[in-house]
Amino acid sequence: MSESNRGNHAGEASRFAYIGLDRVIHEKARLSLLTSLVTHPRGLRFGDLKQLCALTDGNLNRHLQVLESAELICVFKHTEDQRPYTVCQITALGRKRYLEYLSVLEQVILDASSAAESADDMTGLSPVLDT
Amino acid sequence: MSESNRGNHAGEASRFAYIGLDRVIHEKARLSLLTSLVTHPRGLRFGDLKQLCALTDGNLNRHLQVLESAELICVFKHTEDQRPYTVCQITALGRKRYLEYLSVLEQVILDASSAAESADDMTGLSPVLDT
Repeated sequence: MSESNRGNHAGEASRFAYIGLDRVIHEKARLSLLTSLVTHPRGLRFGDLKQLCALTDGNLNRHLQVLESAELICVFKHTEDQRPYTVCQITALGRKRYLEYLSVLEQVILDASSAAESADDMTGLSPVLDT
Repeated sequence: MSESNRGNHAGEASRFAYIGLDRVIHEKARLSLLTSLVTHPRGLRFGDLKQLCALTDGNLNRHLQVLESAELICVFKHTEDQRPYTVCQITALGRKRYLEYLSVLEQVILDASSAAESADDMTGLSPVLDT
């Protein structure tokens, strides 16, 4: 890489740090859970969430606890015909934080789109600094 | 939630599991690194990557090792004026896997977009199953 090429990165400090990618939301299972819940704002039963996100009982419980502790979801216990069941619902804060997170994801895609468009330039990759 | 509402989820099994969200790529620091590298296909120096992704030396080294082990990047040692430096470059496999990952990310955004549009419906959230 020439010095002039390196100069192109000046002013791009932390350009790709994506500070807004909140780790509480970004974790794969929790992203699945929150996407399920944000698209079902009236709530989902434990069993539905488990199926929609393909999680085991243990993993689902663990991630729900993390999301509940962060006040991104609330968990309710109900009974129907004397049988207990659990319902999870995204909170207003959870929805706000999820949408903020989503805007960062969109930035990742935007940043990468130029690279996707130049796919033809990628053949014959080789180190460039010693050429 | 009424049974008819629950029925809407039939056929949506694992709808939000996002199997394609490869954890090697999805981890926040590694997503930053790969986005940096896919947008700079001719490679980036260690110092540039560190700055662009706002990582410490230790974290950068750790995540580069994970990406190199997965053959998503290659790392080269060079010298310039007798001073050594390291260059990282995304591999063809890395680019392919990153773009596949990106298409799943786009699906997350697509899935969530309908929820974003119905923001006005979210005021006064309350549990729905016991109403």
